[in-house]
Amino acid sequence: MTTAPINQTTISTWFKGLQARICQALEQEDGKATFQEDAWQREGGGGGRTRIIQQGNVLEKGGVAFSAVHGAITEVMQQKLKMPSGEFFATGVSIVLHPYSPHVPIIHMNVRYFELSQDDQIHQQWFGGGIDLTPIYIVPTQAKWFHQQLKQVCDQYHPDYYPQYKSWADDYFYLPHRKETRGVGGIFFDRLQPSDTNPLESCWHFVQAVGEAFAPTYIHLMQENKTKTFDEQAKAWQSLRRSRYVEFNLVYDAGTKFGLETNGRTESILMSMPPEAHWRYNYQPDKDTPEAHTLQHLKKEIDWINL
Amino acid sequence: MTTAPINQTTISTWFKGLQARICQALEQEDGKATFQEDAWQREGGGGGRTRIIQQGNVLEKGGVAFSAVHGAITEVMQQKLKMPSGEFFATGVSIVLHPYSPHVPIIHMNVRYFELSQDDQIHQQWFGGGIDLTPIYIVPTQAKWFHQQLKQVCDQYHPDYYPQYKSWADDYFYLPHRKETRGVGGIFFDRLQPSDTNPLESCWHFVQAVGEAFAPTYIHLMQENKTKTFDEQAKAWQSLRRSRYVEFNLVYDAGTKFGLETNGRTESILMSMPPEAHWRYNYQPDKDTPEAHTLQHLKKEIDWINL
Repeated sequence: MTTAPINQTTISTWFKGLQARICQALEQEDGKATFQEDAWQREGGGGGRTRIIQQGNVLEKGGVAFSAVHGAITEVMQQKLKMPSGEFFATGVSIVLHPYSPHVPIIHMNVRYFELSQDDQIHQQWFGGGIDLTPIYIVPTQAKWFHQQLKQVCDQYHPDYYPQYKSWADDYFYLPHRKETRGVGGIFFDRLQPSDTNPLESCWHFVQAVGEAFAPTYIHLMQENKTKTFDEQAKAWQSLRRSRYVEFNLVYDAGTKFGLETNGRTESILMSMPPEAHWRYNYQPDKDTPEAHTLQHLKKEIDWINL
Repeated sequence: MTTAPINQTTISTWFKGLQARICQALEQEDGKATFQEDAWQREGGGGGRTRIIQQGNVLEKGGVAFSAVHGAITEVMQQKLKMPSGEFFATGVSIVLHPYSPHVPIIHMNVRYFELSQDDQIHQQWFGGGIDLTPIYIVPTQAKWFHQQLKQVCDQYHPDYYPQYKSWADDYFYLPHRKETRGVGGIFFDRLQPSDTNPLESCWHFVQAVGEAFAPTYIHLMQENKTKTFDEQAKAWQSLRRSRYVEFNLVYDAGTKFGLETNGRTESILMSMPPEAHWRYNYQPDKDTPEAHTLQHLKKEIDWINL
């Protein structure tokens, strides 16, 4: 953990390092593909580096993106984010990984910092983030283990974090039109603002811990599942579940919508899309199949840790 | 054309008949698959019949849906459609067809009637609709022919219809984040309300003519293209273009968004999804390829008829 002052530069520098460490760890575990980097500049200020992995041994398509952007708060942002006029600064790391095997879950992670200022004075600042897991086939013991890792991170900083952020993830990663959660959830938080009882340093250390937890947690799940065999039916089910991932990201995900509406870099925003997805009209799995078992677990408010 | 009174019953009955005629014509041309019907009831009033075709000779996945729903105007509708309180009645036919061959274009058609009433008095009534074509490979002579058919229909009713509705389609079927139109456009219109100079009868006959034009126009395009050979690269390009179709429908299409937000029947709303779609990070076709040629034509304001 850093002891340097906590500001735009130290936060974004740390995020950049996190991106590098995560990419290295994933490349090592994948054993075949390497990340390709696109560095980009934002017209209004700042930029980012989007790192994409494709056709690996384990990872079929995925991205680990860093960005640090700033500029005047536009009218669209004032409306969409209910912000005052002034300047904004936003930095973060976003990850979505789509593995080839239907036994290795899709994962998403995001850690971010947002700052609003007027006349060079910080007006508001907050952190946000989350990690959520989307197994194609839900294995309750693995979902339990995954939630235990997140709880462990949360509990180091505040006893309310895990229950609150687990519940927030249930609500956020939800497809009302399917009456399904996206997967087994995880944690989600936003507008975590420093306060007298929770100073900037604590917030930042928590966000750093979430970021650091990502690689070992996901690599464990890759190792646990990557050698399992699967058949065509499992791949077909994966394609169908991927279509639900597309539906969530394009219809509901706040980051995706905001990015597309505010003229963000399309290819970086849509790096979350799966390599492919299938839609079948009104598909219902047969009773007592692994597919039906998974559907039954795509529900809010499952207490995975005590299941 | 009907000479019967024009009201909820006669309009919806005619739409139901249109659905049946279109399905029959498409089945005959496809030569293999038949439409499977799902009849459904809406909790708040009314219902529909969704007809789906899958794995045909020409049509890989498609739907021709009829619905006639009514009920109290909900708060969500008041906000989203800027409506007063009261009762609504909505009926229409919606079509999206995804052919197997990348040489046969995707097509979409919709004709609809909307009525608002208070205390059994019609308060407002309007028609809407459109047809638009999404070729995987744009063939300018075919796009020209397609627009000529639409212009012919429009010109019988009003000289302003084609130019206005062609331009409306350019604006509506547009993906700002890709800076691409969905395809070669067509016509799109909404809130076509009866007036002194354009009585209910004329509006309705125009909408009927749009509906009747669909089958012969699309069947001509099926016949023209269905025997052309194609390779894996063409299928890969089709999968990529289908992903743009997904993006348009889930991010921008007003009917899809409204349907999902107002708790519509999900499987009927999302029958527009392609059987499959692929995303590749930052894909750019090589210069002077048929794919690059198509991208260059995914632009607004192309005067297809005089090209």
